[in-house]
Amino acid sequence: MRAEILSVGTELLLGDILNTNAQYIARELANIGVNVFYQTVVGDNPERLKNAYNIAVNRSDIVITTGGLGPTKDDLTKEIAAEYFNKKLLLDEKSLEEMMGFFKKINRVPTENNKKQAYFPEGCIIIENHNGTAPGCIIEDGGKIAALLPGPPKEMKPMFQESIIPYLKKFQDGTLVSKVLRVSGIGESSVDKEIGHIIDRQKNPTVAPYAKDNEVHLRVTAKGKNEEEARKLIIPVEKEIREVLGDINVYGVDEESIEEVIAKMLIENNLTIGTAESCTGGFVAGKLIDYPGISKVFLEGAVTYSNEAKMKRLGVKESTLNKFGAVSGECAAEMAQGIARTAGTSIGISTTGIAGPGGGSEEKPVGLVYVGIYMFGKVITRKLNFAGSRQKVRDRATFTILDLLRRELVKYLEK
Amino acid sequence: MRAEILSVGTELLLGDILNTNAQYIARELANIGVNVFYQTVVGDNPERLKNAYNIAVNRSDIVITTGGLGPTKDDLTKEIAAEYFNKKLLLDEKSLEEMMGFFKKINRVPTENNKKQAYFPEGCIIIENHNGTAPGCIIEDGGKIAALLPGPPKEMKPMFQESIIPYLKKFQDGTLVSKVLRVSGIGESSVDKEIGHIIDRQKNPTVAPYAKDNEVHLRVTAKGKNEEEARKLIIPVEKEIREVLGDINVYGVDEESIEEVIAKMLIENNLTIGTAESCTGGFVAGKLIDYPGISKVFLEGAVTYSNEAKMKRLGVKESTLNKFGAVSGECAAEMAQGIARTAGTSIGISTTGIAGPGGGSEEKPVGLVYVGIYMFGKVITRKLNFAGSRQKVRDRATFTILDLLRRELVKYLEK
Repeated sequence: MRAEILSVGTELLLGDILNTNAQYIARELANIGVNVFYQTVVGDNPERLKNAYNIAVNRSDIVITTGGLGPTKDDLTKEIAAEYFNKKLLLDEKSLEEMMGFFKKINRVPTENNKKQAYFPEGCIIIENHNGTAPGCIIEDGGKIAALLPGPPKEMKPMFQESIIPYLKKFQDGTLVSKVLRVSGIGESSVDKEIGHIIDRQKNPTVAPYAKDNEVHLRVTAKGKNEEEARKLIIPVEKEIREVLGDINVYGVDEESIEEVIAKMLIENNLTIGTAESCTGGFVAGKLIDYPGISKVFLEGAVTYSNEAKMKRLGVKESTLNKFGAVSGECAAEMAQGIARTAGTSIGISTTGIAGPGGGSEEKPVGLVYVGIYMFGKVITRKLNFAGSRQKVRDRATFTILDLLRRELVKYLEK
Repeated sequence: MRAEILSVGTELLLGDILNTNAQYIARELANIGVNVFYQTVVGDNPERLKNAYNIAVNRSDIVITTGGLGPTKDDLTKEIAAEYFNKKLLLDEKSLEEMMGFFKKINRVPTENNKKQAYFPEGCIIIENHNGTAPGCIIEDGGKIAALLPGPPKEMKPMFQESIIPYLKKFQDGTLVSKVLRVSGIGESSVDKEIGHIIDRQKNPTVAPYAKDNEVHLRVTAKGKNEEEARKLIIPVEKEIREVLGDINVYGVDEESIEEVIAKMLIENNLTIGTAESCTGGFVAGKLIDYPGISKVFLEGAVTYSNEAKMKRLGVKESTLNKFGAVSGECAAEMAQGIARTAGTSIGISTTGIAGPGGGSEEKPVGLVYVGIYMFGKVITRKLNFAGSRQKVRDRATFTILDLLRRELVKYLEK
């Protein structure tokens, strides 16, 4: 099955945004064994969109478009697909109803334009959009398949997972199953070096590494007669990877985030936690609260960006700040202890650092971050150095303190 | 001048890497007024590359390719371009010499394959590569231009800056200038409805709307003899848009984020602030702290996810929680007042809501969020409803409280 990805949007064409959709779809299609032969980007121009559409459908079995399903006059993908396949656009009452419900929920009134989003080429399969107002659709005609998806990744990705993948799997022989191992604390090139021999075998299952911002994902993909057979093939390879890299470095699998892994350990063992943040300024608390149900154990977070707040709120000693500075292991330790004491939690974690772009010195450069973990009367601190922008330093510090906490929790719970 | 960007490489096609080259080139071309009409990605397959090349050159005045200039058999861009323009590939002694020098410098011996990189279509302009072994080239033939650049961004970008931009500027008359107006509080379709007549004029300047997660961006682009003339053309259109949409709804321009706009107002007027967050759990503080220098005015943030923390930390009354619940305007008001009082700030802002996926009821559904702003003895609250995932609800609540704060600050400072 030959596929083409056609991304519609002037902001892509002009380089205002990166085409992450095309990468996402290409990778997902590769995972289920669909060959992508071309990717095209075209703007919201009817004539050129029509031209690109004709070329794409002619040379492919399936064309997946993203974008151009919005309510404005510029949004033309559905109209052009309908014209290509010679189908009328008909109102879908169910989609209209859902759209009206969506607008009611957010206390807004749809414009006449919005209703355009409830019209679809006759006979198509409508794909619900649970994160926006533009449903997608699949047109099947004369041995060709056209799938139309909205442009915003937050809408497109769930629709792709929920509808397009199951739909395309029908056309595949055998079943592909993937499992992602999420690795922290080891860089991409080290992972590559350690398990290069496993990757090179490249038979069934295959192993592919993907470098992410703070971690490396290893996607293990097996093909079997059925799902059970494919899953069985993954087991020994996963075991081997865990042995080579160290089990503690594989923090989760598939969609498990680090905050989810931590939250589950905390909740299961009824361990309460508080956060005291300086440079990360709320992001550590924010991440933990991403996990629903965390309220049982997350008692309080403090964002103490100024020295005054560190003293007043957390009881950091003035002498500590004078002697070692706010960016120091000593301060991180007192912050972690301070939040645990004042919030009455078993665990307190802290961050303090120089996120930049200003504020660095030779002794304490931008990117220097200290983190602290207080657990059951003991406190540990770590000195870290990160490169990159203010946002990147804060993001890396957030991930790293969470990963350290995870490692400490695993150690503690193993006892 | 109609341009097409053709990116060659199987790793792009399969989504193993993001196509940052295409974005970079598109943006650089837009800046010098060259219209990109299509972007295409194709793998290292001779037949399909030839097909994509033919289509691209036929429909464009200039085709810029990246990738496929390496030493391996898979690298075919130069060969296919030479074939298309019916040119022989000839050895360029100077390029060969430089290549030998490069290899000597890195203590390696070139293979026979490497020499392939010193052959070029006859009559072309050779573009030196100071960061790698593959020079690029420009072919001019029959009114068409083909520019061939290597794939690695570290090699491609300097070559683009040093050679392609000066080359293309010769063909341009005038300068393009863009200004982005960032609009909050109005949805994309409403913006479209309000200023559709301005967009439809589509002459000089042009106006293009882009829907973002919580806001709409309007890009106003003018062409003038020089930058000054182009800037002057933008002024009346910007003024008209601000009048139609309401000046207060245009929160910033170009790269200005909402947290930057707020941080500047707070710092300039020496207004201190504290945050008290429940459902957003640290994201509001995290956003504000994105702005360097905020520490002068951001005194403290509290993440009070549990009822106990709301009472203990912020002094929310137990009777308020019993009578109205934690997700109520009354609780939001007491949270905002509580953080301002305990942190000793002029302003306190708060969020409390049901981010989901669980915890909703008919009376208080998932997505219901109350926010509070305490300023100089007065407190205002708002009831909001958001659709979408837990992350989306939290993200929208974060943006919305910041936008409300911005509006209140503008009102206050106008007095």
